[in-house]
Amino acid sequence: MAKIKKAKGKTKPEKKAGKKYIYFFGKGKADGNGEMRALLGGKGAGLAEMTNAGIPVPPGFTITTEVCNMYYENNKKIPDAVDKEMLVYVKKLEEVTGKKFGDLNNPLLVSVRSGAKFSMPGMMDTILNLGINDKVVEGLAKLTGNERFAYDSYRRFIQMFSDVAVGISKHFFERKIDELKEKKGVKHDVELTAEDMKTLVKQFKEIYKKEKGVDFPQDPIEQLRIARNAVFNSWMNERAITYRKLNDIPHNLGTAVNVQTMVFGNMGDDSGTGVGFTRNPATGEKVFYGEYLTNAQGEDVVAGIRTPKPISELEKEMPEVFRQLREITSRLEKHYRDVQDFEFTIEKKKLFMLQTRSGKRTAKAAVRIAVDMVKEGLITEEEAILRVAPNTLDQLLHPVFDPKVKLNIIAKGLPASPGASSGRVVFTADEAVEWAEKGEKVILVRLETCPDDIHGMDKAKGILTARGGMTSHAAVVARGMGKCCVAGCEDLKIDEDNKQFLVKGKDIVVKEGDWISLDGSTGNVILGKVPTVEPKMEGEFGIFMKWVDKMRKLKVRANADIPRDAKVARNFGAEGIGLCRTEHMFFAEDRLPHMQAMILAHDEKGRRDALDKLLPMQRSDFEGLFATMEGYSVTIRLLDPPLHEFLPKREELMSEIVTMKANNTTTTNNEIIKKALELVPEGKNDLEKAEKLLHRVEELHEFNPMLGHRGCRLGITYPEISEMQARAIFEAAANLIEKGKKIVPEVMVPLVGFLKEFIDQKKIIDETAKKVMEEKGVKIQYMVGTMIEIPRAAITADEIAKEAEFFSFGTNDLTQTTLGFSRDDSGKFTKVYIDKGIFEKDPFQTLDQEGVGKLVDIAVKAGRSTRPKLKLGICGEHGGDPASVEFCHRTGLDYVSCSPFRVPIARLAAAQAAVKEKIEKKGKKTKERDK
Amino acid sequence: MAKIKKAKGKTKPEKKAGKKYIYFFGKGKADGNGEMRALLGGKGAGLAEMTNAGIPVPPGFTITTEVCNMYYENNKKIPDAVDKEMLVYVKKLEEVTGKKFGDLNNPLLVSVRSGAKFSMPGMMDTILNLGINDKVVEGLAKLTGNERFAYDSYRRFIQMFSDVAVGISKHFFERKIDELKEKKGVKHDVELTAEDMKTLVKQFKEIYKKEKGVDFPQDPIEQLRIARNAVFNSWMNERAITYRKLNDIPHNLGTAVNVQTMVFGNMGDDSGTGVGFTRNPATGEKVFYGEYLTNAQGEDVVAGIRTPKPISELEKEMPEVFRQLREITSRLEKHYRDVQDFEFTIEKKKLFMLQTRSGKRTAKAAVRIAVDMVKEGLITEEEAILRVAPNTLDQLLHPVFDPKVKLNIIAKGLPASPGASSGRVVFTADEAVEWAEKGEKVILVRLETCPDDIHGMDKAKGILTARGGMTSHAAVVARGMGKCCVAGCEDLKIDEDNKQFLVKGKDIVVKEGDWISLDGSTGNVILGKVPTVEPKMEGEFGIFMKWVDKMRKLKVRANADIPRDAKVARNFGAEGIGLCRTEHMFFAEDRLPHMQAMILAHDEKGRRDALDKLLPMQRSDFEGLFATMEGYSVTIRLLDPPLHEFLPKREELMSEIVTMKANNTTTTNNEIIKKALELVPEGKNDLEKAEKLLHRVEELHEFNPMLGHRGCRLGITYPEISEMQARAIFEAAANLIEKGKKIVPEVMVPLVGFLKEFIDQKKIIDETAKKVMEEKGVKIQYMVGTMIEIPRAAITADEIAKEAEFFSFGTNDLTQTTLGFSRDDSGKFTKVYIDKGIFEKDPFQTLDQEGVGKLVDIAVKAGRSTRPKLKLGICGEHGGDPASVEFCHRTGLDYVSCSPFRVPIARLAAAQAAVKEKIEKKGKKTKERDK
Repeated sequence: MAKIKKAKGKTKPEKKAGKKYIYFFGKGKADGNGEMRALLGGKGAGLAEMTNAGIPVPPGFTITTEVCNMYYENNKKIPDAVDKEMLVYVKKLEEVTGKKFGDLNNPLLVSVRSGAKFSMPGMMDTILNLGINDKVVEGLAKLTGNERFAYDSYRRFIQMFSDVAVGISKHFFERKIDELKEKKGVKHDVELTAEDMKTLVKQFKEIYKKEKGVDFPQDPIEQLRIARNAVFNSWMNERAITYRKLNDIPHNLGTAVNVQTMVFGNMGDDSGTGVGFTRNPATGEKVFYGEYLTNAQGEDVVAGIRTPKPISELEKEMPEVFRQLREITSRLEKHYRDVQDFEFTIEKKKLFMLQTRSGKRTAKAAVRIAVDMVKEGLITEEEAILRVAPNTLDQLLHPVFDPKVKLNIIAKGLPASPGASSGRVVFTADEAVEWAEKGEKVILVRLETCPDDIHGMDKAKGILTARGGMTSHAAVVARGMGKCCVAGCEDLKIDEDNKQFLVKGKDIVVKEGDWISLDGSTGNVILGKVPTVEPKMEGEFGIFMKWVDKMRKLKVRANADIPRDAKVARNFGAEGIGLCRTEHMFFAEDRLPHMQAMILAHDEKGRRDALDKLLPMQRSDFEGLFATMEGYSVTIRLLDPPLHEFLPKREELMSEIVTMKANNTTTTNNEIIKKALELVPEGKNDLEKAEKLLHRVEELHEFNPMLGHRGCRLGITYPEISEMQARAIFEAAANLIEKGKKIVPEVMVPLVGFLKEFIDQKKIIDETAKKVMEEKGVKIQYMVGTMIEIPRAAITADEIAKEAEFFSFGTNDLTQTTLGFSRDDSGKFTKVYIDKGIFEKDPFQTLDQEGVGKLVDIAVKAGRSTRPKLKLGICGEHGGDPASVEFCHRTGLDYVSCSPFRVPIARLAAAQAAVKEKIEKKGKKTKERDK
Repeated sequence: MAKIKKAKGKTKPEKKAGKKYIYFFGKGKADGNGEMRALLGGKGAGLAEMTNAGIPVPPGFTITTEVCNMYYENNKKIPDAVDKEMLVYVKKLEEVTGKKFGDLNNPLLVSVRSGAKFSMPGMMDTILNLGINDKVVEGLAKLTGNERFAYDSYRRFIQMFSDVAVGISKHFFERKIDELKEKKGVKHDVELTAEDMKTLVKQFKEIYKKEKGVDFPQDPIEQLRIARNAVFNSWMNERAITYRKLNDIPHNLGTAVNVQTMVFGNMGDDSGTGVGFTRNPATGEKVFYGEYLTNAQGEDVVAGIRTPKPISELEKEMPEVFRQLREITSRLEKHYRDVQDFEFTIEKKKLFMLQTRSGKRTAKAAVRIAVDMVKEGLITEEEAILRVAPNTLDQLLHPVFDPKVKLNIIAKGLPASPGASSGRVVFTADEAVEWAEKGEKVILVRLETCPDDIHGMDKAKGILTARGGMTSHAAVVARGMGKCCVAGCEDLKIDEDNKQFLVKGKDIVVKEGDWISLDGSTGNVILGKVPTVEPKMEGEFGIFMKWVDKMRKLKVRANADIPRDAKVARNFGAEGIGLCRTEHMFFAEDRLPHMQAMILAHDEKGRRDALDKLLPMQRSDFEGLFATMEGYSVTIRLLDPPLHEFLPKREELMSEIVTMKANNTTTTNNEIIKKALELVPEGKNDLEKAEKLLHRVEELHEFNPMLGHRGCRLGITYPEISEMQARAIFEAAANLIEKGKKIVPEVMVPLVGFLKEFIDQKKIIDETAKKVMEEKGVKIQYMVGTMIEIPRAAITADEIAKEAEFFSFGTNDLTQTTLGFSRDDSGKFTKVYIDKGIFEKDPFQTLDQEGVGKLVDIAVKAGRSTRPKLKLGICGEHGGDPASVEFCHRTGLDYVSCSPFRVPIARLAAAQAAVKEKIEKKGKKTKERDK
């Protein structure tokens, strides 16, 4: 929740004598350092850190966050002394760079950027090229020999300055550009000439004068003062305030202002710009990895308009720069102890690092990098564990193409995001959504993607583009989504109008709706549908997960109802079954009739007859589960859903009866109903039978089935059901124990709210166990416990734990009852709730820790107060959600149980929780020692 | 909950030296006293107390509860020393009474009864006449000059002893009696002669011998030993164990055995037996009140076979005995400081008190007696408050016959239980149930009632009997039920076979189904239906309620949706409205169409148009409520139920559509649906309209409406609804404030679970209030608060209280969500739950203090932690349940709110809670002081 924290007291707005308000960086030395985020902001501290590390960073200075607060306390004015101090540092900057503000021969140009303690994207735009004026622009033209570049820079500066610093709408300027292009009959900005740029500069200055009433400022210092104040003003703009509220950032932190020398990669063929990674962000391989363009500005690379060259070519073109870049970036990697994603500019063979940050990576890469770095001694195993986001593991758990299948590879692009998938070709994002909603698997094929395509990318099974590199929009987004992507596949000729693509040099036409397959790990584009096989947990992943398992304290089990799921779970490292929903067995075609017969029976005898038929089926189900999970605990929940779920729907029966009557017939044509009617012995004809069946359905009908006759309430009213299920469990266990297997059944009573409910069911279970053990002459070690899934159970957990040997938190139902939300119905308002910020996250996905979590915590403490060795687990969907797993760790549960595919995610989340706790404790100890 | 407490350690089974195990009472002096309930049991302590108070009680002795425990620890044997001690006391008893066991001339006969610390009805039957044997019976015959009496007593003794002490089925004996009656051609026991009794005695002894293999014991001491041990054995019989479990009575308390001299009221016309009250139990009047029979045994009075004489006649028949009885009973009343319900026997002009206890009474009597006793200086006002069971007040709040109506009184009986009611005549309990279930009001008319009639009495509006007195079964049960009863109406000739009754001396025949009316306060039986008027809160009741109001700390409000109910509530002393359910206003015929139009609207504009039409109606509703409750707070809850409740039922629409289609028509004949279809503008015909309406109904359909789109979720998704309601509230308030009235609106947001939900709605309410105040130029003092009705709200109450100015616990929904029970559906298992003892009481009637109550307590503490002056109330049904009101007092709420008719009950319950707390505190202080 956003809390607005206010400044505790006022600092005096005057500059304090001797106090430093501006920090310089440049020439290998900075006044500040990386620790000073509060004072210099994140960006300023980072620039200081890099400078100190000997990284060639364009020099500059940072005006501190304290100045920002002074600015506000001083009625939005900068104290004179601070302003004077700034002039001192401008001078220093001129000295260090050898450039001068307003110097025609060697002008100093700077960028001005905000930078708060915490990153606040979108708070303020950057102003580039500050320092240009009517004269400097000419000097710049001369200096670069590129008049178009100089005037283009000037017009960009006027545009940015006007928009960002003084609030003149961009619109005015864009219209002028459009008018000019129209007049000249050209399409793109690049087609405009130097003369055109001069015209635009003239027009832009006129706009400025018209809007502001004064001329565009020609004095670079005045430009700087205005820009600096604009940055401070931006701290209190609405976007920033909202962002801070949403992210719980105090308003009194203030922002710093970073003033940094501009460098230019477009000063000729000895200049250039590029981006790169210290390791491959897709595979994690330790190879220097990147792309660059000569004589270009940074945005040209990212925009994907010119296809950039691989960084290896830089070695040939500018060997010294390349060597320096390699040396710097590996130093950066060591310094920050993580893969770096860096931006650089070469200005006349001189290398400048513009930015470096931890690189985004695929899960595969994250695991490999983490493991490699441990091997290299760069990080510890514990740090490695924290380096992989649990949810991303999902990417590694899904199928790859069956290696035994011969692939019809029709093209090869860049392996931009790993994974393997098949789908039918569509050519627009809208179509991708449309087809996907009809249940089709689709591959989105685009020349290149842009943010407008996101919704289609989200629905597609894979993305294929003809243009753009490994850092293109398509590649970045697909990796973020954990979705397979092949990018820059230049052999494709995409014909969007005719909804088809050709493969160059081959006689292949792929039309909309045709099946293709993508391998995001190789870049292969394959014709047709390709079967996939399960991934294996080996190599780096295997090593990584061993560390994970060593570190975590929480056990991880799986929710599985059938042996097949249990097998998947065990392969993924599940240490038992936390929830087997026995009712899923009753819905099978061969069982449903017996279940229905039981429900329709008039008395206990009738019910027992039907249950007798179900007994051997349940027993064999349990045998399968037990055998698969041999050696581990298997928690089996007794029948939970209301009985009407097993009968035909009330409305259908009603309609069918009305129809029969209206048609004056006594026979139904509805096959499903006809089948169900076979179970109704009384009644001469379908109509009579249907009416009798409807009568029973009506009897069982509930207004709120979620809060109705279900859970242990069934077993209490029909003890014979619990008895049959207990018998099936213990007979299955006995049969396997006889064969020498180690079987550990845990019988779970659902929906308990009162101790006496539990006692009632436990008695049946214990008596049945005793009987079966006597009959079979076998000893079975078992436990009887309960779900904690309604608030009363949590509140009275101390009572319930007197009898229950384990608790399993059923956080799905506990969320429904604690929040008073039916999961099936809350869709009607959840969207509005998320839009209005009432929910931060869907409480059915991530545990509501303030509400439901508090109840869990109460129950854990109360339960252990009467039974210190109470076994505690969670079996709701939340058991596979990393944030919720962390909560479970902190609350002291023994295990989490989740769906089989989330088992590795839960394992990692559990390990991270343990590592974080360890770090916190260490931090506390250090603090205490330091006192 | 029944807890089985075990003895902490074993006491040695041997009699400890010098320790006393038997306590004597008789001749004005007892070894024990009234405080020794644990040792002597309730009955034994009472007998000692009465003896010490100089009351003529038949002498006897009590074998202590310790002996019972020794008996069990000693493998069901009485230690010899105790047995010897018993013989000593038998001797003492013989001395005191001048009678002797086995003495032919003056035999000692005793009764043997169990008596534990807590009354356990039905644990063991009594054995009377112990001491008779083949010789004594002859002496008894001589002594009483009544051979029949002597042999009748003997055969009764054999029968009781055999059944109770040695476990021979009653059946054997009853069969013999039946055989004899048949043989003699008589119907009733009383028609059997002395000779017949002799025959029976012979046969009974034969049965005993046949079943037990030994002769019927002739030695009175042996009889006594067997009977004594039988009493101890009965402590562990199944009935007793179950009773203790259900009532949370420890099993190690043991029972005492009371051996008491028999006295006989059937020793001639100078003997007699009777029962009475020290004040009138129906009206409370201070008149000596009772009935007796000469030459009769106690059971003859209670059985209602002979109609007893009023006690005033005893004054004429035996003036000295009468004087003594008056003196003793008024002493008893003073001693116990309460009305006494006593039993007495006169044996040859000698008076014995057999029992005395606090008398059951009607609410009217309870109030009058309490008030009188305060005036008499017998009890304090605080004690008086505790003397009236809150729920019984209900009897005083219901209508009486309109005094302006001329009554056609056809007969007059005893005014056995007050109240006035009309109903149709039925003659059997089964018919009463049958008719009542068809919705008929019935008066049950019986010759006399018996326990088999209870189910019919429960369903009847009133009970009329032709036989029996004020203490007959009908009278006692009806008073307990708070139901009107006229008993002993001897003018009636009931002809059950022809289902009619005649009135003697009048030419009136009342047939089954005819309307009659009963006035239980006068005994009048009236022909036809009589209108009733509301009762007035005056006289003693008024005085009593003034004391109540003086003492209580909780305020009492009413739940009322319309001015009529508010008026009733105010008359009953309500101090405001705690819950006005605004949706009840929308169901009115003139409003429903607008509500439906709002729901069917496609957009906000459509909804606002419909709401505009509802606004003036709501405003006038609120004006009425405010005006009625002027000066008090009125809490208005915003719209709560899911919207589909306002539309036709889904199943009905479906059926109607299927019917139209099957009949090949597009027009419906269903009037209700036709009316609803008027609101559907689109669609050519009924069928199309119905399909469109069904579509919307389907959209709104919910699986669990209780947990669905309702409460504040409506106001958040459709803010215009909250806005309209807030406007109606504030406009209504402003209109009345303008007229100088004091109006205190409290706006209540329902179903809040998240602070942000509340903030969202509060903003709308505050903004609307501000607007209305500006428009009207009026200042309105109002509060905005919330219902606490889902567990999350209770758990996060500290957060919610930051913004909410009051909480009202909606314990209906809070019970549903905390227990995970839908109130509408729980009927399917509640009966089983009560049968199995899982529920002690229906949690929807009496607050589940361990579960729901704990959440309330958490919320109260949390809420006050962030807002110390938070106003707290309850508005669920529990607000009128005395036990729950006491809980609210203890938990520190400010008020309870209940249905208007329960307001006086809640006031009294609140006062009792305050008194109890005061007593407890005093007790604690005394304890502390005594340390």
